[in-house]
Order: sequence, then C-alpha cells, then structure tokens
Amino acid sequence: MQLRHVKIKGTGKYLPEREISDAELDVVLGTPAGWVNKITGVGVRHYAGEGETASFMGARAAEAALADAGLSFEDIDCLVCTSGTKEQPLPSTAVFIQQAMGQADSGVPAFDIDATCLSFLVGLDVMSYMVEAGRYKNVLLIATEIASAGLNWEDKESSALFGDGAAAAVIGPAEAGDASGILHASLKTYSSGARYSEIAGGGTRLHAQKFTAENAVPYLFHMDGQAIFRKASKLLPDFLSEMLSATGNQMDDFSLVIPHQGSAMAMRLLRKKLGIAEDRFLDNTAGHGNTIAASIPMGLHEAIRQGRITRGDRIMLIGTAAGLSLGGMIIDY
Amino acid sequence: MQLRHVKIKGTGKYLPEREISDAELDVVLGTPAGWVNKITGVGVRHYAGEGETASFMGARAAEAALADAGLSFEDIDCLVCTSGTKEQPLPSTAVFIQQAMGQADSGVPAFDIDATCLSFLVGLDVMSYMVEAGRYKNVLLIATEIASAGLNWEDKESSALFGDGAAAAVIGPAEAGDASGILHASLKTYSSGARYSEIAGGGTRLHAQKFTAENAVPYLFHMDGQAIFRKASKLLPDFLSEMLSATGNQMDDFSLVIPHQGSAMAMRLLRKKLGIAEDRFLDNTAGHGNTIAASIPMGLHEAIRQGRITRGDRIMLIGTAAGLSLGGMIIDY
Repeated sequence: MQLRHVKIKGTGKYLPEREISDAELDVVLGTPAGWVNKITGVGVRHYAGEGETASFMGARAAEAALADAGLSFEDIDCLVCTSGTKEQPLPSTAVFIQQAMGQADSGVPAFDIDATCLSFLVGLDVMSYMVEAGRYKNVLLIATEIASAGLNWEDKESSALFGDGAAAAVIGPAEAGDASGILHASLKTYSSGARYSEIAGGGTRLHAQKFTAENAVPYLFHMDGQAIFRKASKLLPDFLSEMLSATGNQMDDFSLVIPHQGSAMAMRLLRKKLGIAEDRFLDNTAGHGNTIAASIPMGLHEAIRQGRITRGDRIMLIGTAAGLSLGGMIIDY
Repeated sequence: MQLRHVKIKGTGKYLPEREISDAELDVVLGTPAGWVNKITGVGVRHYAGEGETASFMGARAAEAALADAGLSFEDIDCLVCTSGTKEQPLPSTAVFIQQAMGQADSGVPAFDIDATCLSFLVGLDVMSYMVEAGRYKNVLLIATEIASAGLNWEDKESSALFGDGAAAAVIGPAEAGDASGILHASLKTYSSGARYSEIAGGGTRLHAQKFTAENAVPYLFHMDGQAIFRKASKLLPDFLSEMLSATGNQMDDFSLVIPHQGSAMAMRLLRKKLGIAEDRFLDNTAGHGNTIAASIPMGLHEAIRQGRITRGDRIMLIGTAAGLSLGGMIIDY
C-alpha cells in the first residue's frame, strides 16, 4: 500500500456537439443496419467538429472541473495533459490547453504525461506524489482525445468503437478529517504487445511528410482486439490479485469499479472473469464510445454525477492500454 | 527548497553513426562556405540512419547509463521516456525503448513525460518524488530525439542547429551519508509563446493524412528564434533569482551550470545576462548540436565524463523549451 492523502476535488467533461448514431455509422462503414449497435452498443458517440480542437475541449472540461471543485484557475499550481494522442507533435498539448483557458501569461507549469489509454490513471498516480510532498497544491489533470481524426474506416470493428471527448479532474491535498486518499496504484507494461494497437506513422520513425494516399494505412489507428483481449485476460487476474492483497481488500469492498471503456463486449467478459458484480461495474460506453485516455476520468465524472459514488466510498480504476500496459488504482473518494 | 534524497546513479549517451559537418550542411542548405560554422559553431552533428530509431538510440543510451550505475535492467522499477518528439503517435516511446532493450515481457512500467526541450528536467523532477516516497526505487529516464526527421531545410537558421541523439540517466534513493540530492526545481509555462517553436502538423488538429507536398511546411519544425530569445531574456532573470533565493545560493556556488543547448549564440548572450562565469557554464553544442530534450542529459553526461563535476558538487540545470517554458533545477551531484 502506498497511501497518499490526496483528494479528487472536482471533475468535469466536454463532449463535442456533433452526435453520430450507430445507424449513421452503419451507413459510413457500409455495414448492415444494426451491425454497429450490435457489436458496440454505443448508441451515440460524438465527433469533434471545426474549432473543437483537443485543447478547446480540454479547456472546457478543465473549467467544468474547476467549477465543480469550487476553485478558480488562480488556485492551480500545475496543469498536466494526460491524453493518449496529441494536438500537434510539438509542443505539448497542455500548453495549448493553458492557452485555450485564457491563461497564456499565467506561468502555470504545463506538460504532458502519456501512457495511451491509461494516461489519466498514470498522471493521477504520478502527480499525487507531488501533491503529497507539497510541491504543488492543486493540480489539473486533463485527458482530451480526438479519436475520429485517425480512424481507419476500412477497419470497421475498431472505428465503430471510438468517440471524441475530454474529461478533467482537480486534485489537491486531503484535509484533516477527510476520508479521501489514494491507497494504491500499479502499472505494468509488456511491450511484446506494443503493436496490438498503434498509430505507426506521424512520429519520427515514419514521418508525416512520407504520407501518400496510397500508403495511408500506417498513419491510421490499427487494433488487434483479439490479441489485446487474449493477453489482458491472461495477465489481469494476477495483476488484480496483487492490487487487492496490497490493500487487503476483496472485490466486494468496492462501491464501484471504473474500467477503461475499451468496448462493452470486452468489458463484460473481463467483468465476469474477474468476478465483479454487474451493479458495481461502470459501463459508460453508451453515449460516449471509447474515448481513449478520457474514458476513465469520464467514467469517474459520470459515476459521481449520477450518485453512484459518494465521498468516502472505496473505488477501483482499472484498465489496459496500448503498450500493452495494465493499470489500476484503489481510491477512497 | 524541496529537498529530495535522490541521486543520479549513472548516465549514458548514444550518437548516431552518421556525422554531418558544418561544411556538408552548407552544401545541403545552399549557404556560402563557412556560414553554418559561423552561425552555429557545431562543427559536427549526427543524423540517425536506417535502423537508428528513437527507441534503438534510447535503448543504447539506457544500457550505457545502467552500466555506468553498475546496475542491470532487473534493478529498474520504472522506465520513463522524456523526449520532446515521439517515435510514433501511439503508443508511447517508452514502450518501444523497453522492447529495444530486449525486455518486452519484463512488465516494467513504461510511459512518456513531454515538456519539449525540458522533458528530461521535468521527468527528473516529477519522478524524483516517486523515488523519494519509495514507490519506485530505480528509475530510468531516457531522452531520445531524431530532430533531423522534421527539419525544414528552407529555414536554414534552425536546420543548421539541430542534431540527433539520445541520453539517459538512472536515478535512485541517495544512501545514508550520500551528499547527493535534488534541492530545488522550478517550471513555468507561458503559452503566449506557444507558437514560437512548433511542429503544427502530425497530431489530431492537422492530421498526417492531410499532408501533401504542396502544404509540407506546417508538418516541419518552425522556430522564431528572435521571439524566443526576447521572451526568455525578459523572464529568465526573475526566474533565476527565485531559484537562487529558494536555496539561498549565489551563482558562484555552482561548480557548473548545464543549460539546454539551444544554440551557442543564444547561450552566450544569456550567460552574460545572467552573470555566469564562462568556465562554469557548459557549452556542449560542438559535436552535438541542439538535440532537443536529449541536450540537458547529454550535457550532464559529458560534464561527468570529462570530470567537470564530481560527487557532491552543486550544479544547476536550466533551460527554455517550446511552450514557452522555463525550467531549472539545483542538484548536489
């Protein structure tokens, strides 16, 4: 156990205005009517429109989180973007979020932490140590993703799953008497699965300037869902056991488990394999889809908003990410 | 002051095999003989060749740092890539470094921290809190950059400055009696300067698949050196004063100041403005050029190797980064 007296003070989210229904996506993908709904159950996901950049969406989610925490930007000591994709290759997305919040001369430190779909969880884990040590008091963590920019529409299974959006949280020190704290966290990375999901082109290895319409595929998202599921199924039970023994918990002790919202189908299978009761497991894919790193904080935000967790509740965040990484965290909210 | 009992246990670097002299670069850029040498003083920089990916270079630098520290990969609890550019948009570069080290099934947590040219400094700062708290014992920090992949050869001033390469450090807890520690660190970000240096295209805002030969420029590195220099000159004196008063130091107390190796010319002007003696200021641009985030750890590695700093010496790392960010750290090596 590695207790940190750190509290999630507020959360917020932003969804793009444009809604894409499963039925519309069937038309785009050329799949039979009902196919997208059957394999995803998403119903409606959102795609960013003109002007809805990652930083714009992230700024709106951050402002909502600040309002929820009863804080203003002046209270913030550090701004960390915890996304799996970037607005542009350089500089970091956090910089553009600071700008989009109208705080371009604030001097507030801004940088990115990237662990793909687990970026928020890792950012929360890492930054909680700086809060615990008193280096930064209040830290804004923001995950903001435009998955739709890089989907491969020929890969119908994966393109059906994703949605765009942003979610944010403000963390700060728990006060005396607060039940809130981060009890434990764990991250493990197995790069033997590095190419199970990836965007190969656009970095320094296969540079954007080598893009042609004929070789577009490597520049788009690729996912081998079967391989991820196989590897994750094999590794997750032990990973979870280790987490539970670190805090002396059993699955029944958690008011809610908030998984990365990869796909409803994979989540259902994993929930059963891990022996988690359905009513204590958040499925937030409907209305959102898989929003990459925004998925966990968005689930957290929705769970709080819907009253599924209240102050002092013990919860678990858990998920897998491209890498392949497994991550989990036990929190007293 | 925010003392952390954390020690830099070993450092390493890797430079690509291919050397590019100033004279060769004059030919590439179409500049008069002697021009590149006059404005950069680099002499020779290195460009990554076939097979020298960011992860390959990073892995070699990491192995050198491990050997220097007398440790093996089994001693490492976390691997953080602290680069300003990425090997590919997804997953994080740290994953590919873990793979390139032959440790694909190790499970060692791997993720990226990105604060452009200050990524190593920020990574060292952030991760030292996890080491101090005992969450991770030994952490590998690796900055690996292929600047040459994205240079705009029409922008002769900026393309003349950069070189490719990687540098790494292993950090761990200082032992009882060790004089080593991180005394203080500071980061400030002013996104009013966000576009002074940037690569606009290749992320989710201007996606790689929109690239055409006719609109190549936004996908390449752009730098307004004058604007950076003006803003940095204005902000750095106060930034430095605050750092010094936090530890009660004067500039004379430092055995060596290791700045981000932006350009020899800018460094010279800043050194004078900040009142730092020439013999206590590391200029490592010759033989390297500006290696983005690898520049500070490469300077650190060279300073140690050349005996310019020895155990217990008080040193300062300082620099600016795209963002625009200012960063600094005071270390007892």
